[in-house]
Amino acid sequence: MKLSEGVEWAIHACALLAAVPPRAALPTRKLAEFFDLPLAYLAKHLQRLSNAGIVIARKGPRGGYALARPAREISLLDIVEAIEGRSPCFSCTEIRRRGPSGAPATAYRRPCGIARAMWKAEKAWRAELARVSLREIQAMGLAETPAAQVKKATAWMETALS
Amino acid sequence: MKLSEGVEWAIHACALLAAVPPRAALPTRKLAEFFDLPLAYLAKHLQRLSNAGIVIARKGPRGGYALARPAREISLLDIVEAIEGRSPCFSCTEIRRRGPSGAPATAYRRPCGIARAMWKAEKAWRAELARVSLREIQAMGLAETPAAQVKKATAWMETALS
Repeated sequence: MKLSEGVEWAIHACALLAAVPPRAALPTRKLAEFFDLPLAYLAKHLQRLSNAGIVIARKGPRGGYALARPAREISLLDIVEAIEGRSPCFSCTEIRRRGPSGAPATAYRRPCGIARAMWKAEKAWRAELARVSLREIQAMGLAETPAAQVKKATAWMETALS
Repeated sequence: MKLSEGVEWAIHACALLAAVPPRAALPTRKLAEFFDLPLAYLAKHLQRLSNAGIVIARKGPRGGYALARPAREISLLDIVEAIEGRSPCFSCTEIRRRGPSGAPATAYRRPCGIARAMWKAEKAWRAELARVSLREIQAMGLAETPAAQVKKATAWMETALS
């Protein structure tokens, strides 16, 4: 089971947008420049984040992307689901209805026990992702990045927004 | 994020093998017959389960597949990992090293905070899967299958093993 690479990019992009001051926006080409990434690749993920209401695109000469709500109100789950969708990881194809122990659909009152157990585990995964806010991710990143690099990034952000 | 269809098949196949009496084995073609599945498709998954030490292939005229250890000692996690592998769902490609806030690898003492948060959530998923034994899955299946179908399946198993 693999999460798409887009999830990693989307979380990093959102963590960067969390550093954009209120009412400002970071141009897409600046975002791409920061990560040394093709614009089209990043734009695709930003579109999904925008559809999910996590980022907004501001128009105008100082336009670009910004978070649609405060970083403390955006969870890792929000971002993962924006990129990966909300379908369950485990799909039940009703295998239990096959073979000599299989009964018609109407004979079963609950989803298959295997699916229930698999979905319960997914729920634990999602709950853990929901517990982590983008604010915490941003704070961890700042705390663990060497001071000289934080200074460089801050200067870069000032230029990018000017 | 999607689990492969093989996971569902493997869990159902193991649940069926859990009903095979000690020292007996269910021929692969009987397993395929039970699920109305191509032999080659099922054989691929049985091979993975065998590589992971979950099932064993018994040789001889009454040969076939059996669980390699008691159903209460096999977890859903064992089966999921046998089919999907043990690699993390989230791969960290060290995006933090890019751009103006990026530092050389030696500057970071810990894995990226984003990766740590993502892996923590995976750990919760795996822990939940590890808590469920094949014995419980089998019991749930028996409890939720109409009695007439359980009877049919029991008769089928007796014939398949004779």
